Amino acid sequence: MVAVSRDELAFAFAVLAAVLALAWAAWSAARLVRHPPGDRRMAMVAGAIAEGASAFLSRAYGSVALFVAVLAGLLLLAGRLGHPGLGPATALAFVAGAAASLASGYAGMRVATCANVRTAEAARRGLGPALRIAFAGGGVLGFTVAGLGLGGMALLLLAYGNPAAPASVDSVSGFALGASTVALFARVGGGIFTKGADVGADLVGKIESALPEDDARNPAAIADNVGDNVGDVAGMGADLFESYVGALVAALAIGAAGGAGRPELILPLLLCAVGIGSAWAGCLLVQATAAADPAGALRRGMLVTGALFVAGAWWAAGVLYGSARDFGAVALGLLLALVIGWLTERATGGGRPPVVAVAKAAGSGPAVAVIEGLALGMASVVLPAAAAALAILGAHALAGLYGVALAAVGMLAPTAMVLAVDGYGPIADNAGGIAEMAGLPPDVRERTDRLDAVGNTTAAVGKGIAIGSAALTALALFAAYAAEAHLRAIDLLEPSVVAGALVGASVPFLFSAAALRAVGRTAFELVAEVRRQFAARPAILRGGARPDYGRCVDISTRAALREMRLPGVLAVGLPLLTGLVFGRAAVAGLLAGALLGGVALALQMANAGGAMDNAKKYIEAGAFGGKGTPAHAAAVTADTVGDPLKDTAGPALNILIKLMSIVALVFVPLFRR
Amino acid sequence: MVAVSRDELAFAFAVLAAVLALAWAAWSAARLVRHPPGDRRMAMVAGAIAEGASAFLSRAYGSVALFVAVLAGLLLLAGRLGHPGLGPATALAFVAGAAASLASGYAGMRVATCANVRTAEAARRGLGPALRIAFAGGGVLGFTVAGLGLGGMALLLLAYGNPAAPASVDSVSGFALGASTVALFARVGGGIFTKGADVGADLVGKIESALPEDDARNPAAIADNVGDNVGDVAGMGADLFESYVGALVAALAIGAAGGAGRPELILPLLLCAVGIGSAWAGCLLVQATAAADPAGALRRGMLVTGALFVAGAWWAAGVLYGSARDFGAVALGLLLALVIGWLTERATGGGRPPVVAVAKAAGSGPAVAVIEGLALGMASVVLPAAAAALAILGAHALAGLYGVALAAVGMLAPTAMVLAVDGYGPIADNAGGIAEMAGLPPDVRERTDRLDAVGNTTAAVGKGIAIGSAALTALALFAAYAAEAHLRAIDLLEPSVVAGALVGASVPFLFSAAALRAVGRTAFELVAEVRRQFAARPAILRGGARPDYGRCVDISTRAALREMRLPGVLAVGLPLLTGLVFGRAAVAGLLAGALLGGVALALQMANAGGAMDNAKKYIEAGAFGGKGTPAHAAAVTADTVGDPLKDTAGPALNILIKLMSIVALVFVPLFRR
Repeated sequence: MVAVSRDELAFAFAVLAAVLALAWAAWSAARLVRHPPGDRRMAMVAGAIAEGASAFLSRAYGSVALFVAVLAGLLLLAGRLGHPGLGPATALAFVAGAAASLASGYAGMRVATCANVRTAEAARRGLGPALRIAFAGGGVLGFTVAGLGLGGMALLLLAYGNPAAPASVDSVSGFALGASTVALFARVGGGIFTKGADVGADLVGKIESALPEDDARNPAAIADNVGDNVGDVAGMGADLFESYVGALVAALAIGAAGGAGRPELILPLLLCAVGIGSAWAGCLLVQATAAADPAGALRRGMLVTGALFVAGAWWAAGVLYGSARDFGAVALGLLLALVIGWLTERATGGGRPPVVAVAKAAGSGPAVAVIEGLALGMASVVLPAAAAALAILGAHALAGLYGVALAAVGMLAPTAMVLAVDGYGPIADNAGGIAEMAGLPPDVRERTDRLDAVGNTTAAVGKGIAIGSAALTALALFAAYAAEAHLRAIDLLEPSVVAGALVGASVPFLFSAAALRAVGRTAFELVAEVRRQFAARPAILRGGARPDYGRCVDISTRAALREMRLPGVLAVGLPLLTGLVFGRAAVAGLLAGALLGGVALALQMANAGGAMDNAKKYIEAGAFGGKGTPAHAAAVTADTVGDPLKDTAGPALNILIKLMSIVALVFVPLFRR
Repeated sequence: MVAVSRDELAFAFAVLAAVLALAWAAWSAARLVRHPPGDRRMAMVAGAIAEGASAFLSRAYGSVALFVAVLAGLLLLAGRLGHPGLGPATALAFVAGAAASLASGYAGMRVATCANVRTAEAARRGLGPALRIAFAGGGVLGFTVAGLGLGGMALLLLAYGNPAAPASVDSVSGFALGASTVALFARVGGGIFTKGADVGADLVGKIESALPEDDARNPAAIADNVGDNVGDVAGMGADLFESYVGALVAALAIGAAGGAGRPELILPLLLCAVGIGSAWAGCLLVQATAAADPAGALRRGMLVTGALFVAGAWWAAGVLYGSARDFGAVALGLLLALVIGWLTERATGGGRPPVVAVAKAAGSGPAVAVIEGLALGMASVVLPAAAAALAILGAHALAGLYGVALAAVGMLAPTAMVLAVDGYGPIADNAGGIAEMAGLPPDVRERTDRLDAVGNTTAAVGKGIAIGSAALTALALFAAYAAEAHLRAIDLLEPSVVAGALVGASVPFLFSAAALRAVGRTAFELVAEVRRQFAARPAILRGGARPDYGRCVDISTRAALREMRLPGVLAVGLPLLTGLVFGRAAVAGLLAGALLGGVALALQMANAGGAMDNAKKYIEAGAFGGKGTPAHAAAVTADTVGDPLKDTAGPALNILIKLMSIVALVFVPLFRR
């Protein structure tokens, strides 16, 4: 009998979990497709959405391919010039990371565009069946992301020799760079697309032509629904994929730099495996109990996943690897996600005092509502930041910088469940759009709207994890960068660090500005196209002619991809340039500044936008006079301001801070000392 | 014959310059009062404004006294408990700093409320005479600030023994704490007052009752004009007084900590003396040439002051103290002020492309205009930040951390001129208000409006100096804190530094939120009072009864002072609490985070607000359809959003970052190691 070491067992377990996650995703998808897709009109609308989403993704992937080719070339060139740690191995890992992220985004989006119409059809029968389908769609995305992320990392570690040999970590970080690069296109490009289409469709449809939301006569209506899929499904998936892989790479790099033995390198993989198992159990529970109590099912599923993960992490870290301190760091990460989610819900949840204050301010006009919303977002930054600060202090006290990386892993290990919950929102949204455009009875639309509302609290946890994990991952990558750069301290009294930090803190502002303006320009182009179609074929408005949906999708796609060139070059180019010109310490300052400014600004924008959205809904539900009053009009204006803040610029910052860190980590051999 | 050393000569020169500055301010004020104050109606309006401003300041000073007493008690108590560097000497310096700032704010405000009506009267004759009076009013503020700041510092150094003995620096830093405390009340409280009154007067006057701006029937009209004096005159003066004194203290503390000899300690004082002389020459030139070419006079005055200061600084640092490197750092500070001013003008100046873009966006409604304005502000952060980063790198390369402090001194030494230019804007504004309320011919109002426009470029330089000097001063104080705390490095890899920085970066957001909400609440109370007066005495609206202006001023005053309690306690309490609980390194992180987040956010808000203001004016000048169009209404909404951003929250951050740093510097003996 051959003796199997603890590390080999753990590694095998991780590979097995990854394979099972992918198998489960495939099986779920196959089962999902067998649900009835509804009548012919529904199929037509759904087909147009699926086609548009595919068109966006394939064109986006074309742009990604170019970007990936350039960076891969740079990696190969640097390797040939003799920079240690760069070269074919890193380039290959980079391409693999990009491919894995692309594949999971594509799978998630494909399934989402199947699930939307089936959710609409199931909503005829009730809330429970609809929730089960929408949730299953989100689950496919979640398990694909987790399976490809964990499996990819494990395979690379195997391929590059000893899975725990420190020498291989340099190359493996290329995998995270690939994930980041795709996330840039999927999340930022998708965010521009989704809000550009949304704002454009609203401006020309609702305001100019008095069409209701999701009216089939609006040529931009399909583009609007495509946006939900490319931004909120594929984009969100790529965002968490980046965090997931980034946290793993950071833990490995810090562990390797500490000259640690195998535990530091294998434990994170094992934790991710535990996360996949816990998420699977939680998802089964949601599916089993959704029919009886849809709202409770989601909450219970999250709780069970969390509890199982804590128990499993105790087994993995505390028992198998014998470190209660490591377990503590992992648990702190999970706790932080819950706290940030709870704070987010308290600050922006429907009917909460801050949201009521915004709704009340709308009574004094749009400007006062916007100011109150912006102020609310600003005020909401400090508590999550303080919670993160305490978690970092705790994790560091328990296990040093490695503990911070473990906290990030702990937050991200149950990613599959988070994405299942997060993904079902846009699917339900889409189902509502299809119900509207295909002329289903109004109670179907009511149910899909309630589906959205059901998951509000759980969605807040998802948002908390997206921002919180971006912050922790970026911080862990920052520490990994310092280790790889052989910087013993990053001293804020050094001028290059301070100068880097000053510029770094301004980068999130610049990036947000670019994202916001991109939304505006995309919306303008869409408006012009819709006006052109109405003018050329007046029958469209009477319902007598089918609008050319495809052109609107095409225009939004082109605009979104064009508009993200500048931010993309900025996020990748700035750390590179700073490193080449001002050296390693300046890059460290740049990353620190971007992290500090980015986290605060991202929280502000996400919460301001969320609260303005809910304030509008609060008034629409009848408060302060309800629909049709000047207060409602003011709230709609505030919501229009808040929308791109929360759905484009805010999430874009998650990507920015991670991408800058990973670029620095990978390319550090090129930087001046 | 007694030999006089170089240091004694320089010190005597500094004292002499301070005395001359004060004498010049007194003489200017006396001459200003002799100008004709206009007819009886003008005197009545001006009297009400002066009375209101005095009422605000005396009540604010009451609150300050309480705050000062508490902090002074804390200093004395800490001294009795045996903490070195704290005790009666520090407490006395603290009270002296507060008194000096109060005195300069009071003097500036008193003169401004004399100058406004005389400017209106002079505007009957032409632009030149009006400019001369308004500018002289600003000059009184400027020379009082510079004279009391430099004189106070010099006297304290003398009083506490050897003017250059390192031991005395600890106590002298109390002077800067006093200045900061008053600045908090004057700038933040004044900012809340001024925008609360402005928004309140507009909401109830222009929108509800269709009264024009500055109509005598509006009970809030006087409060609105009082706001210009307490916020933009006294508040701006206190802001720059704080920077001026803070930069000196930082240079002294860094010089002393480096164990340097006298030059490091005396040179900054001498530079301030040179600054006073150059400002004086510049002011004389403006007065002499204002009649012929008002717009050019201001520009030439600034240029001459700058050129003379550079020459004088070369004599002082390069020749007398023999350090070309020190001179270089000083010159970099001045250059940075000009660059930031130029960038500000480019980003927010009337008719500039970014402003036109906001105006154009207004054509698509208020939400799009607000988004474009916010994005513009965000995009405008990076270039000034990069310029500051380069200046810091340069100054540090030339003269270490002391060089950074010297750059701050170089930026601030010509403060008298900056305040003269900056103070004349609100005086001209007030003159316009008086002209309107007293029923002067319309061409008088036109001239006062043009007066405002004339100084736009120079005012941008003033704004650049306010933010830039706050950043440099806070950074220099940060370095001084590290020296006093015996922190050899402030290492971002240490968890307490990172945790402190995360919280620190969120503090400016929280502070801004408090300021914005305070404006809203103040405005609401004012609106309620005006409605009450209209309802109780309908004759007011017909012009048949005099409104109770005093009550409106009183309500705004109470509200503003009540609303600033929380931010005040936050700014002082947070560094104290962090130091007591988490120790010195965590405070360093907190300060760094606040500085990084604060500078970026302050620039964003100032520039977003400035651009939205100018976009509205651009449309009012006839672009995109001009007044009365939906585009104009959208631009007005955007301007209402931008106003509290640029006039309350943005300037408040200047105070926040300096105050937190100086609190940390003074109280460091109490902090855990």
